[in-house]
Amino acid sequence: MSAQYPSMTNATLNVLNRTTVVMVHTSHSGNIGSAARAMKTMGLHHLVLVQPKLFPSEEARTLSSGAADILERAVVVDTLEEAVADCDFVVGASARSRNLPWPLVNPREMAEQVLALPASAKVALVVGRERSGLTNEELARCHVHVNIPANPDYSSLNVASAVQVLCYELRMSAIAAQNEDKPACGVEWDQPLAKGNQLESLFDHWEKVLVDIDFLDPNNPRHLMSKLRRFVLRALPDEVEANILRGMLSHIDKKLRRN
Amino acid sequence: MSAQYPSMTNATLNVLNRTTVVMVHTSHSGNIGSAARAMKTMGLHHLVLVQPKLFPSEEARTLSSGAADILERAVVVDTLEEAVADCDFVVGASARSRNLPWPLVNPREMAEQVLALPASAKVALVVGRERSGLTNEELARCHVHVNIPANPDYSSLNVASAVQVLCYELRMSAIAAQNEDKPACGVEWDQPLAKGNQLESLFDHWEKVLVDIDFLDPNNPRHLMSKLRRFVLRALPDEVEANILRGMLSHIDKKLRRN
Repeated sequence: MSAQYPSMTNATLNVLNRTTVVMVHTSHSGNIGSAARAMKTMGLHHLVLVQPKLFPSEEARTLSSGAADILERAVVVDTLEEAVADCDFVVGASARSRNLPWPLVNPREMAEQVLALPASAKVALVVGRERSGLTNEELARCHVHVNIPANPDYSSLNVASAVQVLCYELRMSAIAAQNEDKPACGVEWDQPLAKGNQLESLFDHWEKVLVDIDFLDPNNPRHLMSKLRRFVLRALPDEVEANILRGMLSHIDKKLRRN
Repeated sequence: MSAQYPSMTNATLNVLNRTTVVMVHTSHSGNIGSAARAMKTMGLHHLVLVQPKLFPSEEARTLSSGAADILERAVVVDTLEEAVADCDFVVGASARSRNLPWPLVNPREMAEQVLALPASAKVALVVGRERSGLTNEELARCHVHVNIPANPDYSSLNVASAVQVLCYELRMSAIAAQNEDKPACGVEWDQPLAKGNQLESLFDHWEKVLVDIDFLDPNNPRHLMSKLRRFVLRALPDEVEANILRGMLSHIDKKLRRN
């Protein structure tokens, strides 16, 4: 993976390090653990809890899996105001449309906005109660509202799942910002691609074999070879793969002659 | 919200409707419930379970929240092969880099690839065991592997969180495709894609032929079949192309017997 997703530089890590997840009035302590795990998988570490119903708890620890360190360093406060006191940019998760229109973005746009902030800006991602989300008053403390574009018939994301999606988008944007010079091809392939002439030899050989086994009628070739070509070229075979196909054809040759 | 995310047209809904989430050997039944909820929030409905440890269960139902309908219609099967038998494009979640490089994309690229498929293609998103993910053999049944670019120091996403992220990206792409008003499908292909079970028969047949022509040594198979699979799957063969390859194999059989 390291080829595709190089380890973070300090600059990129920076945005994940200066972003805090704030969970407001969480009822189920398991969700706090799951959110901690979700955060850590995406490289975020700072969690603030506004009046959690129960914390710390055994359930949170269990569900945090390997992310207990985030729970141990989590800060519990009384109000959202305290939680975001030192933040420069506050994002509030909002499932519902509100009376008062507010800047509203989807998670991807949110991440782009965060990446565009000055490199020292402290960011808060705020998620609300399991049943009712954030109040209008709490949402009014946010610079921007983020909505995960859910199924209108069933939009109730679990609060830890929402944290997962928001942190995922932030990480994706951080990687993209860093990787502008990443290789165009997703995989660091271990073999060079087959060259044009290797492929032509392969197709010539293949055609002969197909005639030898009476599959291809030279007097009525139809589109057989074209279809085979289209198929093989679409896969962009590497040298080893081309050699495997050549090897197969040679063995068919040998077998036919020996018999 | 309706202004920003217009309700889905049939065409866009289509990609969510023809995508199945496949969970392989899930140990914790709660994760099945959470995954069902994650799916439904993103507008996906089809869930297949390969040998779940416990299903149905009270815990799955509880964690599914309002998505019990997905659990009720979930299909339980014995093998991944069965689960993807009628699928045209199989995506396997992979956390680790493997010995054999395979087409590897991030969730966003995965969603773009799925959106570019013919509009009738059936898609499977396959996630593995909580502890160990998918086996190499299972991954070799996939056209493409998807990796959620996680924190290298702690990459263990909960399996339902992974489903949330994958379904989220699929929904985001579906919305984007619809908002651009462009056709959902990239190529107007003239043939249906080969189904999973057709491809499995092809690989079985091919393997037998390779043994018969002394190209494949069953006692020392190395990665030959995996490489052949990888190559064929990468090309996303259509039915005619798969039939051509089958036809070739049958003619080799005939020829060997006749000689």
